[in-house]
Amino acid sequence: MRFAIDAMGGDKAPDALIQGTLQAAQITPEDQFILVGSEEARPVQPLPDNVAWHISTQVMAMDENVQNLLKKRDSSIWIATKLVKDGEVDAVISAGSTAAQMAAAVILLGKIDHLLRPAIATTLPSLQGPKIFLDIGVNADIEPPMLLQFAQMGAVYAQAIGVADQPQVALLSNGAEEHKGNALTREAYALLGQSNLHFIGNREGRDLLIGNYDVMVTDGFSGNIAIKSMESAFHLMTAILKKELTAKFSRKIGAILIKPALNELKKALDYQVYGGAPLLGIKGLSVVCHGSSGAEAIVASFRQARSCYQHHLTDKIAEAILS
Amino acid sequence: MRFAIDAMGGDKAPDALIQGTLQAAQITPEDQFILVGSEEARPVQPLPDNVAWHISTQVMAMDENVQNLLKKRDSSIWIATKLVKDGEVDAVISAGSTAAQMAAAVILLGKIDHLLRPAIATTLPSLQGPKIFLDIGVNADIEPPMLLQFAQMGAVYAQAIGVADQPQVALLSNGAEEHKGNALTREAYALLGQSNLHFIGNREGRDLLIGNYDVMVTDGFSGNIAIKSMESAFHLMTAILKKELTAKFSRKIGAILIKPALNELKKALDYQVYGGAPLLGIKGLSVVCHGSSGAEAIVASFRQARSCYQHHLTDKIAEAILS
Repeated sequence: MRFAIDAMGGDKAPDALIQGTLQAAQITPEDQFILVGSEEARPVQPLPDNVAWHISTQVMAMDENVQNLLKKRDSSIWIATKLVKDGEVDAVISAGSTAAQMAAAVILLGKIDHLLRPAIATTLPSLQGPKIFLDIGVNADIEPPMLLQFAQMGAVYAQAIGVADQPQVALLSNGAEEHKGNALTREAYALLGQSNLHFIGNREGRDLLIGNYDVMVTDGFSGNIAIKSMESAFHLMTAILKKELTAKFSRKIGAILIKPALNELKKALDYQVYGGAPLLGIKGLSVVCHGSSGAEAIVASFRQARSCYQHHLTDKIAEAILS
Repeated sequence: MRFAIDAMGGDKAPDALIQGTLQAAQITPEDQFILVGSEEARPVQPLPDNVAWHISTQVMAMDENVQNLLKKRDSSIWIATKLVKDGEVDAVISAGSTAAQMAAAVILLGKIDHLLRPAIATTLPSLQGPKIFLDIGVNADIEPPMLLQFAQMGAVYAQAIGVADQPQVALLSNGAEEHKGNALTREAYALLGQSNLHFIGNREGRDLLIGNYDVMVTDGFSGNIAIKSMESAFHLMTAILKKELTAKFSRKIGAILIKPALNELKKALDYQVYGGAPLLGIKGLSVVCHGSSGAEAIVASFRQARSCYQHHLTDKIAEAILS
């Protein structure tokens, strides 16, 4: 498989992108990797045979207005996405501005036919294994038919990355009963019930990490609130635990003994193991990585991209949307 | 102060309600308490002088359709709320169906003049102390002016329970910048900016427990998602930690040594210490307790009610809405 990597995007760019790519190039020597970035960012040491450096002269900053993209057609994300469009590579990987990556993908690769809005899914580490949650993207104001399409795309994606063969699809709401929710979710509930998806009804925020579903759909606003509220809770618990574990000598001893347990906890909650997530609904593979991705997350993102590619994610989403 | 307690509402009713009331009656012997419940639920031992039992023959179940309330005018929540209306008590406390409690309050006590929708606030245990978050109630579909009123009520409530003298009000959104959000929050942003509140702009889900604000406002749908997503994260972390701490002998020893730290963590995250939350926007005090409240939470809810009463919460909200 052939990858283009936006070497300039992300909090730890270009180092994490370069290191992650070099590691992946060793793990799968049969793959081809094209790093896209500035002349200055290029490593001085020679690159392996299956890694090339493609020079770009511009960068889209993390918080830059996405409208600048059309004026920056030599930016790393534009060039890397164009390599997919031109058939030079099979997927693009970026940890840069998600809005810029989405815009480049929509403009250069195009939306799948009859799709209303592309979406971004994340993999949640639930008590019952990894689960799919979408949209966590930029679709803040949406209509019920878009939620149905998110569900269709989420189900295909869940199959592609092995979450479930026959995914159980749930709708995020403020109560389990059918009449609960807002105008958007109540209408979407009816559409999902009439679809050929395996729709299991409403689920609540507390179910997200319990994992009594395979694919949970919501609008991008609520998805963002949910993801970041969970982050907030992890952050608070970790901060209190750290403070309390160092408050007394006996606890410090205990903390040393339980260190491996805390490391396991950290690993269980680490998004890095899941790598990136593809933009769903694009005619081509564009994989979004968390802005703070380290080399490990970048390595994982190649695995994610390969699963999606081998399972013909794009074609299958196109079929699902038409069904 | 005089309280009516819905003895029949809540997962642990009537025991938790009775025990909590009896404890509170000892702590503040100058207060009067009227427990409202069935003949069968009444304790056999004699009640203290400042505790009375008022017999009701009906109960609104936790998940019962709220429309049944009008047919159940001898239900404990209806009777207890009516004691406020009739001037027999100063506040009603319930851990039963929130929808039934809200309906009884709106019907019997009435909404504050010019208020669009009552709301329910919760107190969050943030890294910077307790903070106010609303609406976590039943207002799933709302308009921007309602969010402004939620903010006004939240600010008064924050003052009443001592969270802040000059509360900093934030709007929950999917990004810090003004242009982020959905149609509802973008319009509300403008209204909040023009108000006489100390509006500090958008905050994200991850800020909820960081506490870089005093009052955070959102619609009831997003509020529910946020609260339950945080619950989900606490639940997952606790479950993983429990599993990992018992996986090896050395960790078990460590776990014994850090037990006090884990207890502190549990205490820090325990909603019971904050007791209940008043329905905001009602002409009278009706305090909602978590359905799973134990006696400790019930005791705390009397304190909450007293703070609101002594700070003339209802009158001050009426003033704020007119300002």
